[in-house]
Amino acid sequence: MSQSHQDRSFAARARTVGIVGAGQLARMTVEAASSLGIDSAVLAASETDPATGAASHLLIGEATDVGQLWALAARCDVITFDHEHVDLAMLSKLEEAGVAIRPATRSLSAGVDKGAMRSTLAGSRVPVVPYRLLDMSVTSSLEREVLTFAADHGWPLILKTARGGYDGKGVWQVEDRDQAMTVLRRLPETALVLIEPLVPIEMEIAVMVARRPGESRAWPAVETTQVEGICRQVLYPGRVQAGVARRATELALSIAERLGLWGVMAVEMFVTRGDVLVNELALRPHNSGHWTIEGSVTSQFENHLRAVFDLPLGSTEPVAPHVAMVNVLGAPDGANPAVFLHGALRVEGSHIHLYGKEPRPGRKLGHVTVTGDDPDLVIDSAWRATRALGAPTLDDAFARRGP
Amino acid sequence: MSQSHQDRSFAARARTVGIVGAGQLARMTVEAASSLGIDSAVLAASETDPATGAASHLLIGEATDVGQLWALAARCDVITFDHEHVDLAMLSKLEEAGVAIRPATRSLSAGVDKGAMRSTLAGSRVPVVPYRLLDMSVTSSLEREVLTFAADHGWPLILKTARGGYDGKGVWQVEDRDQAMTVLRRLPETALVLIEPLVPIEMEIAVMVARRPGESRAWPAVETTQVEGICRQVLYPGRVQAGVARRATELALSIAERLGLWGVMAVEMFVTRGDVLVNELALRPHNSGHWTIEGSVTSQFENHLRAVFDLPLGSTEPVAPHVAMVNVLGAPDGANPAVFLHGALRVEGSHIHLYGKEPRPGRKLGHVTVTGDDPDLVIDSAWRATRALGAPTLDDAFARRGP
Repeated sequence: MSQSHQDRSFAARARTVGIVGAGQLARMTVEAASSLGIDSAVLAASETDPATGAASHLLIGEATDVGQLWALAARCDVITFDHEHVDLAMLSKLEEAGVAIRPATRSLSAGVDKGAMRSTLAGSRVPVVPYRLLDMSVTSSLEREVLTFAADHGWPLILKTARGGYDGKGVWQVEDRDQAMTVLRRLPETALVLIEPLVPIEMEIAVMVARRPGESRAWPAVETTQVEGICRQVLYPGRVQAGVARRATELALSIAERLGLWGVMAVEMFVTRGDVLVNELALRPHNSGHWTIEGSVTSQFENHLRAVFDLPLGSTEPVAPHVAMVNVLGAPDGANPAVFLHGALRVEGSHIHLYGKEPRPGRKLGHVTVTGDDPDLVIDSAWRATRALGAPTLDDAFARRGP
Repeated sequence: MSQSHQDRSFAARARTVGIVGAGQLARMTVEAASSLGIDSAVLAASETDPATGAASHLLIGEATDVGQLWALAARCDVITFDHEHVDLAMLSKLEEAGVAIRPATRSLSAGVDKGAMRSTLAGSRVPVVPYRLLDMSVTSSLEREVLTFAADHGWPLILKTARGGYDGKGVWQVEDRDQAMTVLRRLPETALVLIEPLVPIEMEIAVMVARRPGESRAWPAVETTQVEGICRQVLYPGRVQAGVARRATELALSIAERLGLWGVMAVEMFVTRGDVLVNELALRPHNSGHWTIEGSVTSQFENHLRAVFDLPLGSTEPVAPHVAMVNVLGAPDGANPAVFLHGALRVEGSHIHLYGKEPRPGRKLGHVTVTGDDPDLVIDSAWRATRALGAPTLDDAFARRGP
């Protein structure tokens, strides 16, 4: 066998994952791929996106650039996603042509469109927050719809765009009719909008689940803390009671099955009056699963890769009794946490992840994970490292919202 | 502040590590760098080297290509190493010009040249295997030197080239004068050669140590198994007794101090008659430290980065009572372990690392790590995954050498 023939056949055997989007989720997926000997190609909106330096192959373009999607498909064995700002019809065309899109577009719609997600969940008899879906292009009286919903559920209400929201963007709490109409009038005429009541929440929790046909595994439920729609802290097990965890895990696994999921998915839930309501789905690695990198046997990123390549899934067991994950948000002064790495690394046992993003106030720039035996100590250490990086604390957030 | 000015100052603050060589050690260093938000530039001999896909910046050239070394220096904040096949005089020139070479060249010589290593160790009263260093360009009677050494220590002897050996290459066991002279006559006329006796070894062990000025940490001692000079298995704690571990750790830390080490170092030792003899030093991440990726709080790769950037070192505590690391070598038929990933990932708890190297028989293509409470189970699982990857087992190796 000639050397060049060997090289070709060797290259032909290497797996390559293609990722639409090149944010921190893509970056951490690429890191996990490298360990497994899997090459990566990313379709990045910008050359400075977090995953561009780490990926084996780089394409520049929007997630809806059909030419670059085909170029990505040509470079990889399977296409998966960093975010859900995609065009499902466009992806379906690739899928029909034989490109492996994972999760498949028929599952993906539940992640892309909150309306589709709610109807899928309601159709599966999964408990969800009451909702009303408004298609603004056909609804003749927005005001009447809002008032009818408020009459049934009371004020305040939550309005959410069905597509394109993230990290609290595209979500508004409105106290009365005037506020509601102000929000709705600012939206595009063709927007799909969800109306929901403000549910009295005891706790927010999340379950990450990995699935490929015939095999699924869930990581244990975690307690999540969001401020203004942005995840700030994730605790395993936090205050999650065994019964709630069991119910949440069953729900997450059944949703994954119902969706025919290939990959990992986050199921974000509210605990309210002892029951569990499903709030959001994300059909990709998710902030509420970052703790799994050091906190469980197999990280969400590795299991996502295993799933999309139809490889056996890894153990989702935690490796310590307690794990705390805290997000490093951009400070109000725009300082770069990377310059404070020295101080943060002094915190014993802290695992610092920085995404290489340009700092902006409130932007997710990294996260810190600490594992251990003592629940208070892991939380304290994670926040000490986060503060050392110059990032805002929960106190800052609550003080800003304060009385 | 204009957008472009912001971008520049942001880029200026990002740390970049430069690595000479782009093998699996560089690849795993790059993976660790990505987590910490550190960019990487590698000087690779070939575009298909393991670390080329993962690094943020790629330069192609030999480790002794002075032009490319300067180009690397221009792209990074600190230069470190994947291997020791370097030109110290050339690196000293860069160092004199202000380039941060870590470890510094004065320490690095102990890793590059086994003669310098032995004299450094002997000068520090570190127990070493008896040796004689022959400079073939000036030794008038090689045969007399060999016979004199054999008269003192007995046959067989071990001959080693002082520079350029790795994985059993450059090392020969010779049974008598004729074999010794055959080996020596094949070497270049200017070679430096170490002669050593064959020491009766109870066990081979290794200690990885990380050091920056004022701070050093050692990972616990591990038992290593080499066959024909190639590391095959590393066990924490294996059969290493507490007293031996203590002595080995003291020696490793004192050597790091003596060398003024910046970075991580492997100290490979023999346990013989209850005592510890230092055999080899490697002033870089090392195969005997791969277990630390999943097996300890901070991996050797992360602590190497922390050290070379003069950042606080991370905890070297193990995260489980037992850890087994097994190397995945190329099978005799040249099969690629990547095609057997499916079977290997079935082994619960196995962490598979593949380096993306072209398969060749006996070549290090990856490794498997398993952590757990049961010493037999972690070994068994690691070897099951290794066999599933089509890689040779220890039985294969011993059978091949056998009677």
